[in-house]
Amino acid sequence: MTQTHVPVIAIHGGAGTISAATTSAEQAQAYHDALKAIVAAAQAMLLKGASALDAACLAVEMLEDCPLFNAGHGAVFTHDETHELDAAVMDGTTLAAGAVAGVCHIRRPVRAARAVLEDGAHVLLAGAGAEVFARERGLEMVEPSFFSTEARRQQLYRVRDTGRVVVDHEGASMAAASPLDEDKKFGTVGAVAFDMHGHLAAATSTGGMTNKRVGRIGDSPLIGAGTYADDRTAAVSCTGSGEMFIRVAAAYDVCARMAYGGATLEAATHAVVQKSLPAIGGSGGLIAVDRHGNLSLAFNSEGMYRGHARGNDAPITAIFA
Amino acid sequence: MTQTHVPVIAIHGGAGTISAATTSAEQAQAYHDALKAIVAAAQAMLLKGASALDAACLAVEMLEDCPLFNAGHGAVFTHDETHELDAAVMDGTTLAAGAVAGVCHIRRPVRAARAVLEDGAHVLLAGAGAEVFARERGLEMVEPSFFSTEARRQQLYRVRDTGRVVVDHEGASMAAASPLDEDKKFGTVGAVAFDMHGHLAAATSTGGMTNKRVGRIGDSPLIGAGTYADDRTAAVSCTGSGEMFIRVAAAYDVCARMAYGGATLEAATHAVVQKSLPAIGGSGGLIAVDRHGNLSLAFNSEGMYRGHARGNDAPITAIFA
Repeated sequence: MTQTHVPVIAIHGGAGTISAATTSAEQAQAYHDALKAIVAAAQAMLLKGASALDAACLAVEMLEDCPLFNAGHGAVFTHDETHELDAAVMDGTTLAAGAVAGVCHIRRPVRAARAVLEDGAHVLLAGAGAEVFARERGLEMVEPSFFSTEARRQQLYRVRDTGRVVVDHEGASMAAASPLDEDKKFGTVGAVAFDMHGHLAAATSTGGMTNKRVGRIGDSPLIGAGTYADDRTAAVSCTGSGEMFIRVAAAYDVCARMAYGGATLEAATHAVVQKSLPAIGGSGGLIAVDRHGNLSLAFNSEGMYRGHARGNDAPITAIFA
Repeated sequence: MTQTHVPVIAIHGGAGTISAATTSAEQAQAYHDALKAIVAAAQAMLLKGASALDAACLAVEMLEDCPLFNAGHGAVFTHDETHELDAAVMDGTTLAAGAVAGVCHIRRPVRAARAVLEDGAHVLLAGAGAEVFARERGLEMVEPSFFSTEARRQQLYRVRDTGRVVVDHEGASMAAASPLDEDKKFGTVGAVAFDMHGHLAAATSTGGMTNKRVGRIGDSPLIGAGTYADDRTAAVSCTGSGEMFIRVAAAYDVCARMAYGGATLEAATHAVVQKSLPAIGGSGGLIAVDRHGNLSLAFNSEGMYRGHARGNDAPITAIFA
């Protein structure tokens, strides 16, 4: 008989800076409710024996669909007022991976990433080529305006005026207030899962950075940077200043510290989030689950939207430290 | 006084399968001559005190300009008979990195990657956005046909008929013979350098895989996958079946095995090239130089175009094991 494990799911909805002026109890509650519902859905799947890959993909799909988070519907705008969405998934059992970057017609980018994984020929498809592939695979296609929300458009206008990409705009009031200052938030969503069969998977999806240069690809769709999973070590999904996560191979580095240095998951994520990233000015966080079901939700910013559940336990959600 | 180190340069021009039928002494000599001239040029720069980053970029520029190699002029064709070029550079001193993917109007993609590194705002720019950036930076732009050669077009036609991406077409005679079977070669060029000041850098450039799906991004422009440099460990540039290099974070993994596992450069590259990659069906190789100037040119294919020089020593070039 195969040994069954207590499944674990964790999700994130971006990390960033607290803006006291825009924090409202009602808004915070909306985030908690959304996170809780998504964790609960993935948890229920895992308890029925679903794979970590299926659970991580479901959670990210639901995060994409929720306009509170910068991925799918509710994605931020580029400098040219367009959308460019990225997503990646990785199966820790086979090291199979799939990702798409710079797409604006695929309703759920994480499904396209999953289709790339299943197709197996390539790992990363970008732009129009990725959209041709998604269409061939029968995925739901939408007009780019599908992703637009008025709050994100106003956010671009505020940010573009400052000429900055990662914005630390102070004093502007948010049209739609959120606990994390929308102008200081690294919006990305992700999930990591450990299933009853002992397998690990990770998935990440993002609308990128407000006011980013057209064509910019961040860490989310890059295997090893924003997303990684290996049954021998851990599954990791990151959110933050993507360029710095790329430069330190953040997601893979968590696994490498465990595999070669014998680090615990906690020590490995601490080293990456509190040492490697700050050393080059990187901020944000990550969620990770290891092959024993240990969990780490680490960030060096003031807050990170996050939630998790172990086995049958009630989902736990949090925003601040 | 600053201690000076004996500089080291190494380059590769792709890895692949020997085709006895197409091996000619004259063609082999042409490759040796090209590799030797490029190593000598970078070596001369390093001996004058140039940075590892400048030397690695010069070598890759020269490899891009040489039609014998699949990068820049002489790049392979996608399935749609277009070109999509990728390049990356990384400075081991600062972990600064720059890369471009899916471009077809930038004469020397590695210069665009270097410009992204110097600009500092982003790490990876793709497609039209990358080309707008290159134009803004005053880089030389060309028509896509600039990259085309008749030999590559014939290669596409042979390969496309088989429906394969990584082709193992047997028995076809090559229009332009080369020691490595053009239909079984992973064409990519790269360089790693260790300078007199003790700094490391890596650069990689590629035309991708013949008959690849439009929009496919391989390992070359992905920091951590095909390219990585860290003064604390090593500089690495890869060539091979890119998808597998992405899935094992090949370039970064060499550095991680040294940093966390205490592996020597030789042991680290051996583990990646002879164990991690073959375990998932990956083939190809990499070149790497560590912070002591040790060199490793490792591959699991039958051959890899390569060359290197240490200090004042005459350049050494090789194709087969």
